[in-house]
Amino acid sequence: MAAELTTSQLSEKHRTTLDQALDVIRTRAYWSPHPEHPKAYGENGSLGAAEGLAAFQALQGSRFALDQPGTDGWTGTEVSPYGPDLGIEYPHADLDVLLPAMRAGMGPWREAGPETRALVCLEILSRISARTHEFAHAVMHTSGQAFMMAFQAGGPHAQDRGLEAVAYAYAEQTRTPVAAEWSKPQGKRDPLSLSKSFTAVPRGIALLIGCNTFPTWNGYPGLFASLATGNPVLVKPHPRAVLPLALTVQVAREVLGEAGFDPNLVALAAERPGEGIAKTLATRPEIRIIDYTGSTSFGDWLEANARQAQVYTEKAGVNTVVIDSTDDYKGMLSNLAFSLSLYSGQMCTTPQNLLIPRDGITTDAGEKSYDEVVADLAASVAGLLGDDARANALLGALVNPDVKARLEAAAELGEVALPSREITHPDFPEAVVRTPVMVKLDGAKPDAEAAYMSECFGPVSFAVAVNSTEDGLELLRRTVREKGAMTVGAYTTSQVTEAAVEEVCLEESAQLSLNLTGGVYVNQTAAFSDFHGSGGNPAANAALCDAAFVANRFRMVEVRRQA
Amino acid sequence: MAAELTTSQLSEKHRTTLDQALDVIRTRAYWSPHPEHPKAYGENGSLGAAEGLAAFQALQGSRFALDQPGTDGWTGTEVSPYGPDLGIEYPHADLDVLLPAMRAGMGPWREAGPETRALVCLEILSRISARTHEFAHAVMHTSGQAFMMAFQAGGPHAQDRGLEAVAYAYAEQTRTPVAAEWSKPQGKRDPLSLSKSFTAVPRGIALLIGCNTFPTWNGYPGLFASLATGNPVLVKPHPRAVLPLALTVQVAREVLGEAGFDPNLVALAAERPGEGIAKTLATRPEIRIIDYTGSTSFGDWLEANARQAQVYTEKAGVNTVVIDSTDDYKGMLSNLAFSLSLYSGQMCTTPQNLLIPRDGITTDAGEKSYDEVVADLAASVAGLLGDDARANALLGALVNPDVKARLEAAAELGEVALPSREITHPDFPEAVVRTPVMVKLDGAKPDAEAAYMSECFGPVSFAVAVNSTEDGLELLRRTVREKGAMTVGAYTTSQVTEAAVEEVCLEESAQLSLNLTGGVYVNQTAAFSDFHGSGGNPAANAALCDAAFVANRFRMVEVRRQA
Repeated sequence: MAAELTTSQLSEKHRTTLDQALDVIRTRAYWSPHPEHPKAYGENGSLGAAEGLAAFQALQGSRFALDQPGTDGWTGTEVSPYGPDLGIEYPHADLDVLLPAMRAGMGPWREAGPETRALVCLEILSRISARTHEFAHAVMHTSGQAFMMAFQAGGPHAQDRGLEAVAYAYAEQTRTPVAAEWSKPQGKRDPLSLSKSFTAVPRGIALLIGCNTFPTWNGYPGLFASLATGNPVLVKPHPRAVLPLALTVQVAREVLGEAGFDPNLVALAAERPGEGIAKTLATRPEIRIIDYTGSTSFGDWLEANARQAQVYTEKAGVNTVVIDSTDDYKGMLSNLAFSLSLYSGQMCTTPQNLLIPRDGITTDAGEKSYDEVVADLAASVAGLLGDDARANALLGALVNPDVKARLEAAAELGEVALPSREITHPDFPEAVVRTPVMVKLDGAKPDAEAAYMSECFGPVSFAVAVNSTEDGLELLRRTVREKGAMTVGAYTTSQVTEAAVEEVCLEESAQLSLNLTGGVYVNQTAAFSDFHGSGGNPAANAALCDAAFVANRFRMVEVRRQA
Repeated sequence: MAAELTTSQLSEKHRTTLDQALDVIRTRAYWSPHPEHPKAYGENGSLGAAEGLAAFQALQGSRFALDQPGTDGWTGTEVSPYGPDLGIEYPHADLDVLLPAMRAGMGPWREAGPETRALVCLEILSRISARTHEFAHAVMHTSGQAFMMAFQAGGPHAQDRGLEAVAYAYAEQTRTPVAAEWSKPQGKRDPLSLSKSFTAVPRGIALLIGCNTFPTWNGYPGLFASLATGNPVLVKPHPRAVLPLALTVQVAREVLGEAGFDPNLVALAAERPGEGIAKTLATRPEIRIIDYTGSTSFGDWLEANARQAQVYTEKAGVNTVVIDSTDDYKGMLSNLAFSLSLYSGQMCTTPQNLLIPRDGITTDAGEKSYDEVVADLAASVAGLLGDDARANALLGALVNPDVKARLEAAAELGEVALPSREITHPDFPEAVVRTPVMVKLDGAKPDAEAAYMSECFGPVSFAVAVNSTEDGLELLRRTVREKGAMTVGAYTTSQVTEAAVEEVCLEESAQLSLNLTGGVYVNQTAAFSDFHGSGGNPAANAALCDAAFVANRFRMVEVRRQA
C-alpha cells in the first residue's frame, strides 16, 4: 500500500520537535510544543472551542466505529460525573481474532526503525493536539475534571507526557548503532573481523489499562513508549472513561494507515459491564507489556500474576506535607489550599497528611500554634472556594460514588477542621461537587494511625499533630516506606530540617517539593523536567518518564557476519 | 576517615578509560584495556605467571579473611574439578548483623555521585586485572576451565564485562543533570520558576548469586552495575566456585576503604553445605536487586518469589545452528568443531542442536548428504581433539558429576556419530576430561523431540535431521520461543534463507551469528560490542549489557524549590 504520509514528509513536519524534546529531557528546562490556552486553538486545522464542543456532542448517543477486526458486539456504559449518560457504544472485541490481527503488522513496524516510529507517533500526537477541545470535553465528562483542567491536563500536558515517552524511546533505541564493523588485532596474523547489525525488536503486544481520573495523562506515556519501541498497543480503558482513549485509538489507527502501516497496531478493548476483561488480557501469552494506573490491589495482582509481561504500575500512595516553618505563611497557606482543592483531591499526587508539630510552627507572621495553622489553612481553603463559580472551576465533580462515600466517612474519623460543602453546578445540576474536608488527627494516638496511614482517595486531608518535626520526619519515612508516595512536600526555613527531609526522600525514593508558595503546586509535574513518581517506593514501580520506563520495552538483536 | 585514594587521583588514573568505554559502547567497535596474553602481565605492579600461581597456592589450605561484620563461623568445601581439595575456608555471615552493616555506608556512597563511583569501580577492576594470573588459577580450579580459557574468560574478558557495566551505569545516571533551572512563561505575568536537583539513589542491597562455570564473567556485570549505581553488593558464590568471587570481594573492600568509603558496601555470603542460603537471602526485604546465572528452575523461582527485588536472570536455553549451505565447508566444520569442544560444551552459549536437512546441503566441496555432514563434522571434532595435549587445553575438566552423567546418558538417545573419549590430564590425573559426544536424531520423530528440545548442558550435541531448511527454521523458532536460546548460528549461501533466519531471530529475540568460518565462534561474545543474550526469550530476562540492565538499579529523586 502506498503511504499517503511518507517518512520525509513526517520528518519535515516533526523532526525539529523530536530534536527539541531530546534536548530538553537532558536539560530538564521548561518546554512544551502544546499550547495550554484554549484560545490558542481554532486555526491551522485545529478545532476551536465551538467546533470541539460540537464534535464531542456529535459523538454522544452513537456508535463509535473503529473498523477493527474481531468486533463481536457493542458495549458502552459511560455516564458523565456531571450527570449526562454519554450513550456511546464501542466495539467489543473477540480477542482470538483481534490479538493475532494486531501481531500481523509488527514486522513492517519493526523494520520502519526508531525514527520513523517516533515521527508517526508525533503525527498521532499532533492530530490529537488539533482536537484538544474535543478531548477536553471527553476527559471532563468521564473523569469529572472541571473544563479547564480537563483541557490542560487531558490535552497539552498529556500530549507532552506522550511526546516525552517517544523521545526517551527514540534515544534509547538509537544508543546502539544500526551497524558496526568490529576488528580485533591478532598480532602478526590478520585481525578477526565481523560486520554487525543491531535491530531494536519489540516484545509483543502491549496492554494499556486506563484509569478513570486521567485517561490520557496517565495513559499516553505507556501507550507511546510501547508504540515507539515497535510494539502493538491494545488499549483497555476504564469502563467509566472510554471516550478519551477511544478517540486516541481512532487517531492512531488513522495515522498508522496513512503512513502505510497496519492500523491494527493500535486497537481498543472495551468491556461489557462486569466482564473484568483486564485479568483475562493481562495473562494472555500475547501480552508482553502492561501499563497500569489504579488501585494497589490490582496493581499488586498484575505484578504477581502477569509473569509473561513487563509490568509498569502506578498504584496508590499516601502523600505527606511536612510543615516545620515558613517565611511566607500566606503563600504557604494559599499554595496548600489550592493543592487540596484541585480536582477535589482526586489526584494521585494530592497531599493527604499534613504533619504539623503540636507545639506549633515559626512563620513570618509570628509563632502559630497547631490549631492556628489548621484553622488558617481551613480558612484559606474556604476562601479559595467561597465563590461557587470558582469552586466549580477548581473542584470539578466527584468521579464516582466511592469518593463521595469516603468524603462522608472521613468526617467521622476525627475533629473536623473544615467541613465539606455541597456546591451546585449551574450547567449540570446532577454533578456531585463537594469542597474538601480537613480532619484533625493526633499522630501519637494509635487509633488515628489507621486513618492517616491509608490512602483516602478524594477531597480528604488529615492535619496530623506530631510531637516535633523530627517525629514528623520519622512518620514521613515510615509512610513512604510502607505505603508509598507519589509526592512529598515540606515547608521549612531551617537548613538542618531541609537537609533532613531531603535525606528521607533520597533514602526512601520520593519526589520532594520544598517551600512552594507560588503558582507551582506539589501535585503538578511538568513533562520533560519533572519525574512523576520515583518507581522506588510502593506507590509505583516506574517513573514517568525515564530510561527505565522505555529500555525494556524492546530488545536489541544483533546479527554478526564474518567480514 | 581521610581517603588514601582521592577522586582526583582516581580520575587521573581512570577517567580516560571510562571515556573510551563510553565511546565504544556507542560505536560497538573492538576495544579492551585488559590484555589477553598471559605474557602481558608481570610488570607495572601486576603479577606474572609464577607470582600468580604462588599467590593461588598460598591461598590453599587456609582461611580467607575478609574482616566483615557478623562472621559467625567458617565454611568451605571447594574441590577442584581437576582433583585437589582447595582447603579454603571463608567467613560465614550472620545476616542480621551483616545486612545492616552493608546498609550503613550507603549514604556517602550515594553522595559520592556517579563519576566517583565509576572511578572507584575502575580501580577495583584495575587491581583485579593486576592479579589476573592469580584469578586464572582460581577460576580454573573452580570451574574446570583449561588454564588459558580461565585466564582469558575469567580475567580480561570478565573485567571487560565489568567495565562495560560501569560505563552503562555511568551513562544512565548522568543522562539527567544534577541541577536544572526551570522557568515557565506566564504571558504578561512573571514566569513560574523552580530550581531543581536530581540525585541518582540506590535501591538497596544487591545480591549476586554466582555460578559454577563462569564465576567472574557472569558475575561482574551485575556486581559492577549495582555498585556503580550506588547499591551495596552481597556476593553469594556458587559453593563450588567461591574463590574467584571471594578474591573479588577482597579487592573491592580494599579499594572502597582506601577511597574513604565503607568496605562493607561489598561483602561475601559463603554458605555451609546444604544451607541453601540463596532462597533465604533472595526474599529478605533488604535485598532489592538480584543477579543470577544458573538453572531455569531456580531462575524462575527467583522471578516469581523475590517480589521485593529487581531480578536479572540468565537461565538455560537450547542453542541451535541451522546448516543450510556454505561456500566454505572446511571452515564451517572447523569453526563448529571448535565451538562444540571449547570447555567441553559447558557454556550457556555452546550450540546443542545442529539442524541439517535430511536431503543434504550444498557446499563449495559439492553436495553433502546429511550423513556426510555429520560424519565430516565428527571427524573435524575428532581431529581437533586428536592430540591429548591440545584436547586438554581446549576441553578443560567436567565441572561436576551431573555433566558426566548427562554425557554418558546422551549416547543412549540415538545413533552416536561421535563417541566421547576419555582423556588423561598429565598434571591432574583425577580430572574428568571427556571429548564431546554427537548424537544423530530425526527431527520428525516425536520420541527424539524430548531429547533435542531440552537443554543437555555439557559436551553433547544433536545432529538433527530436518525435512528442509524451512522446517529447520520452524524448529528454530519453536525452540527459541519455548526453550530460549543464548545463541543462534546459521550457515547459508542463500540470501533468501539468510533473510528468513534473520527474521526468525528478530521475531523471537535471539542473537544470531551467520556463516562463521574463521576465528570467531558462536559461543563467544566480546564486551562493548556484542550483546550476551537478548533478554527477550526464555533463556534470560536481561542482556549483558544494555541500558535496561542498569537503568532500574537506581531511581532518580528530584527536589524542587521555588527559585
